[in-house]
Amino acid sequence: MIRITRKFRFSASHRLHAAELSADANRELYGKCNNPYGHGHNYEIEVTARGPVDDMTGRAVDLRLLERLVREHVVGPLDQKSLNADVAEFQAKVPTTENLAIEIYRRLTQAWRSVFPGEWPVLERVRIVETARNIFEIGEAHGQK
Amino acid sequence: MIRITRKFRFSASHRLHAAELSADANRELYGKCNNPYGHGHNYEIEVTARGPVDDMTGRAVDLRLLERLVREHVVGPLDQKSLNADVAEFQAKVPTTENLAIEIYRRLTQAWRSVFPGEWPVLERVRIVETARNIFEIGEAHGQK
Amino acid sequence: MIRITRKFRFSASHRLHAAELSADANRELYGKCNNPYGHGHNYEIEVTARGPVDDMTGRAVDLRLLERLVREHVVGPLDQKSLNADVAEFQAKVPTTENLAIEIYRRLTQAWRSVFPGEWPVLERVRIVETARNIFEIGEAHGQK
Amino acid sequence: MIRITRKFRFSASHRLHAAELSADANRELYGKCNNPYGHGHNYEIEVTARGPVDDMTGRAVDLRLLERLVREHVVGPLDQKSLNADVAEFQAKVPTTENLAIEIYRRLTQAWRSVFPGEWPVLERVRIVETARNIFEIGEAHGQK
Amino acid sequence: MIRITRKFRFSASHRLHAAELSADANRELYGKCNNPYGHGHNYEIEVTARGPVDDMTGRAVDLRLLERLVREHVVGPLDQKSLNADVAEFQAKVPTTENLAIEIYRRLTQAWRSVFPGEWPVLERVRIVETARNIFEIGEAHGQK
Amino acid sequence: MIRITRKFRFSASHRLHAAELSADANRELYGKCNNPYGHGHNYEIEVTARGPVDDMTGRAVDLRLLERLVREHVVGPLDQKSLNADVAEFQAKVPTTENLAIEIYRRLTQAWRSVFPGEWPVLERVRIVETARNIFEIGEAHGQK
Repeated sequence: MIRITRKFRFSASHRLHAAELSADANRELYGKCNNPYGHGHNYEIEVTARGPVDDMTGRAVDLRLLERLVREHVVGPLDQKSLNADVAEFQAKVPTTENLAIEIYRRLTQAWRSVFPGEWPVLERVRIVETARNIFEIGEAHGQK
Repeated sequence: MIRITRKFRFSASHRLHAAELSADANRELYGKCNNPYGHGHNYEIEVTARGPVDDMTGRAVDLRLLERLVREHVVGPLDQKSLNADVAEFQAKVPTTENLAIEIYRRLTQAWRSVFPGEWPVLERVRIVETARNIFEIGEAHGQK
Repeated sequence: MIRITRKFRFSASHRLHAAELSADANRELYGKCNNPYGHGHNYEIEVTARGPVDDMTGRAVDLRLLERLVREHVVGPLDQKSLNADVAEFQAKVPTTENLAIEIYRRLTQAWRSVFPGEWPVLERVRIVETARNIFEIGEAHGQK
Repeated sequence: MIRITRKFRFSASHRLHAAELSADANRELYGKCNNPYGHGHNYEIEVTARGPVDDMTGRAVDLRLLERLVREHVVGPLDQKSLNADVAEFQAKVPTTENLAIEIYRRLTQAWRSVFPGEWPVLERVRIVETARNIFEIGEAHGQK
Repeated sequence: MIRITRKFRFSASHRLHAAELSADANRELYGKCNNPYGHGHNYEIEVTARGPVDDMTGRAVDLRLLERLVREHVVGPLDQKSLNADVAEFQAKVPTTENLAIEIYRRLTQAWRSVFPGEWPVLERVRIVETARNIFEIGEAHGQK
Repeated sequence: MIRITRKFRFSASHRLHAAELSADANRELYGKCNNPYGHGHNYEIEVTARGPVDDMTGRAVDLRLLERLVREHVVGPLDQKSLNADVAEFQAKVPTTENLAIEIYRRLTQAWRSVFPGEWPVLERVRIVETARNIFEIGEAHGQK
């Protein structure tokens, strides 16, 4: 059983503002991230899958398929976008990196079996490196499956 | 003579759109960066100064002063901002990273002598790491002074 | 459930010398790290917390609180210090990075509930990157809680 | 209980070609990696061990022993080699990074007790960073022990 | 005037062997790099161009053109290749990273004006990061133009 | 003509204190770096040499010789040392990283011709990465030769 991680990057902007809170509470809660015109990040995401190694090919995950899956469902729709304005899921939800992680994990989980129809590999977790200091992680082990 | 570089980070969003060009020409020129709602980056900037080493203190640049100068004139005003909406200089200029480098270099050059009034140190150059693949650099050697 | 990691840095010096061992045994055991006048490192620490995402705010951990907690109990007291001479806990214990990890984890565990009084988030683990080649990790999963 | 990771590097070449598949199937499966003359990587490996901290010495793993073990059984025999031509295990197996991870883990597991004869430390896992985007991991938690 | 650097990666194998030297002299000179079956690297290359910023577009280099140029003339022909066996220029020349830098610089210089026909931007230099410890650089300032 | 850079690492401690200044002036000038018991860093140094590429061997610098030179004169004498207590040059000089750069450059310049007796390669510059944010550089171009 092997764990394989592939890294991807995309750049997007977001503004943190909770509709149910007052202007003051938003400023207090999100600080500079509440700035009305938003700011942005180079997000780095790491997608980890797990599976047994095939005896004949020596591979546990077909990385071309994983590449296509993540490009189609995550990097393509999010790269160089405004998360608040361009992504339907963040019309109603604050685009914190926590919610972004949940959304990316949801997209990959939903599309996974159409690309990897067998028992293996399974999607184990998604990590987002938001800045050089902040990392967010979600997956199987965190009760999301 | 020693060269000293200090690194800083800030996160901001921008949208690339040249007012004098048609919508089509903008899309052609800037690609996804022309997306109306913008996107963002974690910018890393490197400020390089040069000067002789003081015999008594063993220092060429007082890094506390450099820190304060860059925080006050660059990181403070730009961090977690929308370059297009929040920064006066980008009302009329497209906030490409080339123009951002020119603007940061201009701000530091202008404030430099109020913080370092003597002959040394001098500001040598500014580099901006926009993404893991794109780096922009401006300075003395590039005919800006 | 989301896992959030924030990174911090501090610089300190240490000398490895076990009081109960002979001078020869110390040299044999710690090699150059036994050098009487010490040496130092830029330590990078990663603090990982885990918790559910709040529906309204989209946050799992208030990073401002985590920042304050780690600055007050870890980075402030250790940055630019001699671990042997300046830190009480290392009067009797050798300041190996193993013991430093235990001490940092102990400090954070002890202060955690005063800053995060609810059930969540919990402190999951602490990692110390001592040099580019050596990493130390301690936490829940390692039977420390 | 502490987890300690040490990093090592080596450079090697490989060619991916499954003997039981046709030339076309190989090209389809491995893409450019099937190029007859091979290509290469700077592999970075991370070896993680786990154990309790000794009260007197403050150490959980004798890093000099770990260094010697990995140099003798992994870095020495693989550095600046052709995995296909120079390494016996890859005469019959395709030298994918999955199989390389299995082989490195097997070598370390086999030699471990001759270097660390006691109950602790145990070998917990091996990670291989093949390129800046691809990481492979194998260990206890993955049912290999 | 601005300097813009874009990074690219490719993986290739090479074997260092000078045809005019004896087997012993080759082993003495190149050490493990003389291993008959070769070894490989993840090469990272940085291409730096320089030019004035266009007032209307705010750009100094059209990065889409630079991307295409480097993909067509460098990354495409070299990625996942054996430099000795697959690249004509290294039939007669030893594929040291010095010679690889000269070859890449030659290819880019030769194709440059077909892609950037005006006076600006100019190609300033090429750097190759061969391993985490070895970097090679060639360009204008080094008398190559 | 090619520029070749090789990176090295060492860990050392230092305390910044100018003998000719009062205790107060020292605290004011060096801040936490004046802490009496010192602190430390993982220094990374980059040594850059320049020379023409030899037609037969394809090499511009014999990296084995450069390795030996830097290990013997810099890494060996400084690794895991206290700069203040263990290094003669810092008995009278404050071991700021500026002075450390000057000292390392002096050692390499002095020993260079015994290892590289011909006209080429020449030592071009030395850079020290003191922390992730501070870099110091000295060399030919800075009037040191």
